[in-house]
Amino acid sequence: MVVSVGKNAPHKVVIIGGGFGGLYTAKTLAKANVSITLIDQRNFHLFQPLLYQVATGTLSPADISSPLRAVFRRSKNTRVLLGKVSDIDPKKQEVILDDQVVPYDTLVVATGANHSYFGKDEWKAFAPGLKTVEDAIEIRRRIFTAFEAAERETDPEKRKALLTFVIVGGGPTGVELAGAIAELAYKTLQEDFRNINTSEAKILLLQGGDRILPYISPKLSKAATSALGKLGVMIRTNTRVTNIENDIVTFKSGDEVEEIPSKTVLWAAGVQGSSMGKVLAERTGVECDPSGRVIVEPDLSVKGYKNIFVVGDLANFSHQTGKPLPGVAPVATQQGEYVAGLIQGRLQGYTLPQFHYNDVGSLAMIGQNLAVVDLGLIKLTGFIAWVFWLIIHIYFLIEFDTKLVVVIQWAWNYITRNRRSRLITGREAFLEVKPMNNDNDYPGKEKQHPLNV
Amino acid sequence: MVVSVGKNAPHKVVIIGGGFGGLYTAKTLAKANVSITLIDQRNFHLFQPLLYQVATGTLSPADISSPLRAVFRRSKNTRVLLGKVSDIDPKKQEVILDDQVVPYDTLVVATGANHSYFGKDEWKAFAPGLKTVEDAIEIRRRIFTAFEAAERETDPEKRKALLTFVIVGGGPTGVELAGAIAELAYKTLQEDFRNINTSEAKILLLQGGDRILPYISPKLSKAATSALGKLGVMIRTNTRVTNIENDIVTFKSGDEVEEIPSKTVLWAAGVQGSSMGKVLAERTGVECDPSGRVIVEPDLSVKGYKNIFVVGDLANFSHQTGKPLPGVAPVATQQGEYVAGLIQGRLQGYTLPQFHYNDVGSLAMIGQNLAVVDLGLIKLTGFIAWVFWLIIHIYFLIEFDTKLVVVIQWAWNYITRNRRSRLITGREAFLEVKPMNNDNDYPGKEKQHPLNV
Repeated sequence: MVVSVGKNAPHKVVIIGGGFGGLYTAKTLAKANVSITLIDQRNFHLFQPLLYQVATGTLSPADISSPLRAVFRRSKNTRVLLGKVSDIDPKKQEVILDDQVVPYDTLVVATGANHSYFGKDEWKAFAPGLKTVEDAIEIRRRIFTAFEAAERETDPEKRKALLTFVIVGGGPTGVELAGAIAELAYKTLQEDFRNINTSEAKILLLQGGDRILPYISPKLSKAATSALGKLGVMIRTNTRVTNIENDIVTFKSGDEVEEIPSKTVLWAAGVQGSSMGKVLAERTGVECDPSGRVIVEPDLSVKGYKNIFVVGDLANFSHQTGKPLPGVAPVATQQGEYVAGLIQGRLQGYTLPQFHYNDVGSLAMIGQNLAVVDLGLIKLTGFIAWVFWLIIHIYFLIEFDTKLVVVIQWAWNYITRNRRSRLITGREAFLEVKPMNNDNDYPGKEKQHPLNV
Repeated sequence: MVVSVGKNAPHKVVIIGGGFGGLYTAKTLAKANVSITLIDQRNFHLFQPLLYQVATGTLSPADISSPLRAVFRRSKNTRVLLGKVSDIDPKKQEVILDDQVVPYDTLVVATGANHSYFGKDEWKAFAPGLKTVEDAIEIRRRIFTAFEAAERETDPEKRKALLTFVIVGGGPTGVELAGAIAELAYKTLQEDFRNINTSEAKILLLQGGDRILPYISPKLSKAATSALGKLGVMIRTNTRVTNIENDIVTFKSGDEVEEIPSKTVLWAAGVQGSSMGKVLAERTGVECDPSGRVIVEPDLSVKGYKNIFVVGDLANFSHQTGKPLPGVAPVATQQGEYVAGLIQGRLQGYTLPQFHYNDVGSLAMIGQNLAVVDLGLIKLTGFIAWVFWLIIHIYFLIEFDTKLVVVIQWAWNYITRNRRSRLITGREAFLEVKPMNNDNDYPGKEKQHPLNV
């Protein structure tokens, strides 16, 4: 609990995770008299809200990534450490990596969350989620390979399964994936194939709750439903997946059970806190919620450990509305800034009132000039919402890295309906028309998430 | 040998390979009364001359790739077939894929070449070559991981090995890789690390012959040597690698044997025709040279088979200068155009004189404003050569795909010295500081080259 600073030894802040929470903690502390170590397994910050555009062939990974060392090049109080945290020791105040130990005075854990397969982790191989660059490349490979395999397939049933895309989860990611795949099938790829008519593709969006985009107002949710419907996406609400196996998705709406053959199932549902939550629970005795998120104190600290904070998707902060704040970038960003302020305050002998999330609103892209934006009093749909969505995303993208090129690219793609990034790459990049259950999992997938699984 | 066309059945041209040779054959035939099938394992054409910029973090794969279906969207006589050719049957005039057979009237084989490890294929795992997008991503991963591992390494000897980069082969690819890595180490990354001084990095370029860039004039080759030297690259000519093992490169200059510990060895030497060369030799009896390239007739056809052509890197065309033409894009492009013209001519009842390569000159990028250009009479070095290099590459990049964004990106990178694409990604993306001989090969690597190995 030592929050003190020697004259020659600046206060040591260790941040685990370079997502929005960790990045904004470090950035806010960039000029403070502290010594920051930012630990991540990846050498770049990922602008996750745009990851679906990589998965659907509009952008390249580098367009939405900022090398962490470049971001902190001029922050001389910050060192970036690439490494995997295996444990923490709150008594000794140490973070344990594979091959070294990093001491801290204050620890900020910002390792995020994954999708949850609701106990059915065996579905993961059939229905990948969208959290990492590798996930996006893999999803991109599956989407475009499905069209390619359909072009070669002569059996009409198999062809139908290849042209059926099922997206599980009706949050922003699911909605954005469904909209983007619909635009691909019904617009962009129309002229590209000779044997198939891509507009015969079926895109199915399954949502457990009674409406898509539950975080926005019911009225906007309805507008999004209607816009997606016009694009050609079929939406099933109150629907739960009961099985995914042998290229067949089984789902239940009420008592009705339906089976749909589909070669491409994408997962955008559920929340599962990353493994650092479990480590924290074991080492500090802090409680986690059923999703594995750490239940934090009103100041985002861990109960009993005033110098350990959890920010972003891994934190369950329920002190404001009674239920956990959503796992979105603005929450993580504000939490990072708050904790940075609190650390500085403590060093100067004062404290801060509890964290308060200033809700900036919710928004989701549906199609190339369709979006929904809920700012509380102001609600937008259609083209104006799309422009707003674009401006907001560009603003945050360029805040810490000059992404002029991305902006130009978007504009260009908008004019030309181009999907220049639709490469099928990666180790499984060569066309395989074998049944999905044989070749669908990709070795090393698990390996990619040692911190997160 | 049937080169005839029925009224309702257009002449069937099958092209294997969507590189420069295959692409330009198909494009030149786009308006001819033929039915074209372009077979490739990948869904995109790769602008290989810029692949080294992906490997060194300047560009993204999509920046230098054009989806084949997009290129041929409006060529209604052309269908793109994603698939792996396993065999050909010249008697039946059929190309055999894993799961189908494609009949042809004329066959154009343009499957290219790989690097040759001179019989030491076991070096491949330690010293990857640069032929595919996956190769580039893997090399990028190794380069940036080496700097990251050095930042964490406390043993000075190991750190030195991590900061030693050895490039084998002094052709354009080797020179461009060496120059780009030197710029990274001595310029771009200077401020990014806290524990290491990246300018302590050693970059070694090994060349078997007596000078680098043997295809350009000795004077320009000397200029390139001096420019690379100024950038910090150490060049060893008349030097042959005798072993690569356990992170140690052994090489021989004259009688002198030297060993250099290095964690990052890149291979840019030798030529080995892709496996279709062997298939052609077996099925048609055509002769291959020791590098596995098909020795073609003066009209690029295969001896005894007037309707089978080989273009690009896989062809050994020695009828012009007595030695094989170099494996560069302009040769492949011109050969593709020639064969397309010959096919059209035959259909109209005339033939063409033998293929003649119109030498457009050679050029190589050295650094951010350094290049060498040899146009025969005109020889350029330095900044003006760099501008020329840029214009030429942009011209060819945008010829069949609008790559405006790439141009803007280059300009932007030039001003900001930015390496925005320096992501460490892929299945082995997480930092491993283990000895290279344990984790260096990446599973699936072989799988990526079924046509080419």
